[in-house]
Amino acid sequence: MTETFQFNLKATDGGARLGEITMPRGTIRTPAFMPVGTVGTVKAMYLDQVRDTGADIILGNTYHLMLRPGAERVARLGGLHELIRWKHPILTDSGGFQVMSLSGLRKLDEKGVTFKSHVDGSLHHMSPERSIEIQGLLGSDIQMQLDECVALPAEPKEIERAMELSLRWAERCRVAFGDQPGKAMFGIVQGGDQPELRIRSAEGLKQLDLKGYAVGGLAVGEPQDVMLKMLETTLPVLPFEKPRYLMGVGTPDDMLKSVARGIDMFDCVMPTRSGRHGLAFTRRGKVNIRNARHAEDMRPLDEESSCPAARDYSRAYLHHLVRADEALGGMLLSWNNLNYYQDLMKGIRQAIAEGRFADFYAETQEMWAKGDIDPV
Amino acid sequence: MTETFQFNLKATDGGARLGEITMPRGTIRTPAFMPVGTVGTVKAMYLDQVRDTGADIILGNTYHLMLRPGAERVARLGGLHELIRWKHPILTDSGGFQVMSLSGLRKLDEKGVTFKSHVDGSLHHMSPERSIEIQGLLGSDIQMQLDECVALPAEPKEIERAMELSLRWAERCRVAFGDQPGKAMFGIVQGGDQPELRIRSAEGLKQLDLKGYAVGGLAVGEPQDVMLKMLETTLPVLPFEKPRYLMGVGTPDDMLKSVARGIDMFDCVMPTRSGRHGLAFTRRGKVNIRNARHAEDMRPLDEESSCPAARDYSRAYLHHLVRADEALGGMLLSWNNLNYYQDLMKGIRQAIAEGRFADFYAETQEMWAKGDIDPV
Repeated sequence: MTETFQFNLKATDGGARLGEITMPRGTIRTPAFMPVGTVGTVKAMYLDQVRDTGADIILGNTYHLMLRPGAERVARLGGLHELIRWKHPILTDSGGFQVMSLSGLRKLDEKGVTFKSHVDGSLHHMSPERSIEIQGLLGSDIQMQLDECVALPAEPKEIERAMELSLRWAERCRVAFGDQPGKAMFGIVQGGDQPELRIRSAEGLKQLDLKGYAVGGLAVGEPQDVMLKMLETTLPVLPFEKPRYLMGVGTPDDMLKSVARGIDMFDCVMPTRSGRHGLAFTRRGKVNIRNARHAEDMRPLDEESSCPAARDYSRAYLHHLVRADEALGGMLLSWNNLNYYQDLMKGIRQAIAEGRFADFYAETQEMWAKGDIDPV
Repeated sequence: MTETFQFNLKATDGGARLGEITMPRGTIRTPAFMPVGTVGTVKAMYLDQVRDTGADIILGNTYHLMLRPGAERVARLGGLHELIRWKHPILTDSGGFQVMSLSGLRKLDEKGVTFKSHVDGSLHHMSPERSIEIQGLLGSDIQMQLDECVALPAEPKEIERAMELSLRWAERCRVAFGDQPGKAMFGIVQGGDQPELRIRSAEGLKQLDLKGYAVGGLAVGEPQDVMLKMLETTLPVLPFEKPRYLMGVGTPDDMLKSVARGIDMFDCVMPTRSGRHGLAFTRRGKVNIRNARHAEDMRPLDEESSCPAARDYSRAYLHHLVRADEALGGMLLSWNNLNYYQDLMKGIRQAIAEGRFADFYAETQEMWAKGDIDPV
């Protein structure tokens, strides 16, 4: 354990980076996948299970938590870690993204954003300072600046305005966060699909000398090659020795390709959300367990998996549970998917450590392309 | 392990009975509570957890399973035990009760019942023989006769007709079941709230010399004292040395009072269904975790419980999860409730073994009456 937030870059292999974030609540091995614990729970999972899949850190959504149970309440209860029983690091987003995507009636100006709760319709105001205050009340270990995230496609003028605003808000968040050696506040690169705007954003944030940098506003509707191009444009501008977090991404393929370009951290609801809808991620690609071909297949999803959900339960049973809309179906598939995501990260880290990331990349793509085992 | 189905009555204490059913798939300690695994899953629970709460047997619903995944399919997959990964005994109901309560368009005559699936509207016919055939295809260890269960209140004439029909169906089920030494087929006493009809039903079933007897058609809307009176009327007529199963019951109080009158087995959806709706059963009675008093209460449901859900998670967190409609809330409360039900049964069995059931009864009632711990 360490008293201060530190990022140690241990190895690189091509563009891929192997590292370690150390901080008082624990060590985060990078590249890292952070399961999303939206409202203080990783959906349909016990947090012990989440830990056992290999998660070093989980993400909490500031927007959801400020509405329920409420930031001040969480603080009175001893903070989010205490409330949800997770003693390892937690990263919180700023709330900005969900304000845009979930809440009604939002009014945005220089000061911040006013929005209506999707839960009870109540009005809330969030400034950059309030976002940091809330994340502090939650007890978050890695906090994110408030930003404005524009859905793509969008007009360059609009993207530029939001990027400039986000940059000014980053500075206010940095001031509000102050000096907290054991914690970190990350800035967020915006700029949509516009390379020059991405570069200006990254350069602006770099001058703020933050402890880490996220790339935001991607995986919001654009094709994968646009996302990757933005990474190629942005990452060289960011300080090499600081962690880089690609927000809200993504599929296993998105992650593999982003690691190849220098990303260290990911979060995404995909493993749990897809799991609840009957989609399993495996070494051999995606498996839609609702498909009739699985109805009488007593083989497991992947007999070589390290996860009981993948190894000990038959496809026929999973198919039945998902078709009958039974909770256990979502529980098992979320577990399988989170485990697969963590196994992928573990494989990536090992490969970088051994200088064979390119081989690992090719082998992994080959297995995905092979597709699922033949029907019975 | 034994080759044959046997019931050994080990002790009595007043009307309460301590026993053991031994059969090839395992031993069932009685009085026993059987968690309901409706469609091949005890809702929101891993079956390992169900086992760990102390369950010796679970129940499967023939109606649900014949519709999904289908009896013939389950048989092709090696039976229900294999499919759902539960190697201990399973009891299946006959399907009759759900046909009456869930399906549309039912037509009942001497031959059986025709009904429309609530899942896809398809038409199905179930005769006493087909019910036993389905239960056999599922691989059920304890099978139930097809019966007609009348909702109370009802006209005595109607109750009598259904009781007589159920008695004729019991005989047909006995013939269809045949000679299966390692398994059992139970008859079901009907007769609504009419003592004479209950007695006639019990006498008729007794003559069939079945391996066990259930009391059905109770907990269908009548007051508790009517239910208990029916038990007092019925049980003395049934053979003393055979197990007695009170179907679909009930609350902890219902069970305690029914054990006092000689019931050996129970099943009920209450622990899981209530759990999903925020109701927790504890040594100190029912706790509605949605209640605002729990919002900032960091104490567990019951720090002395044997269940992690009751002991390790705060009321504040459970309250939050239930209010936010998060799956983990139902998972934890179902776990707590099933564990409480099994702990109650364990306490009952110990008390009977030690000849202090009356004291246990009084102490348990006293703790329930005391109510929950004071608010913080």
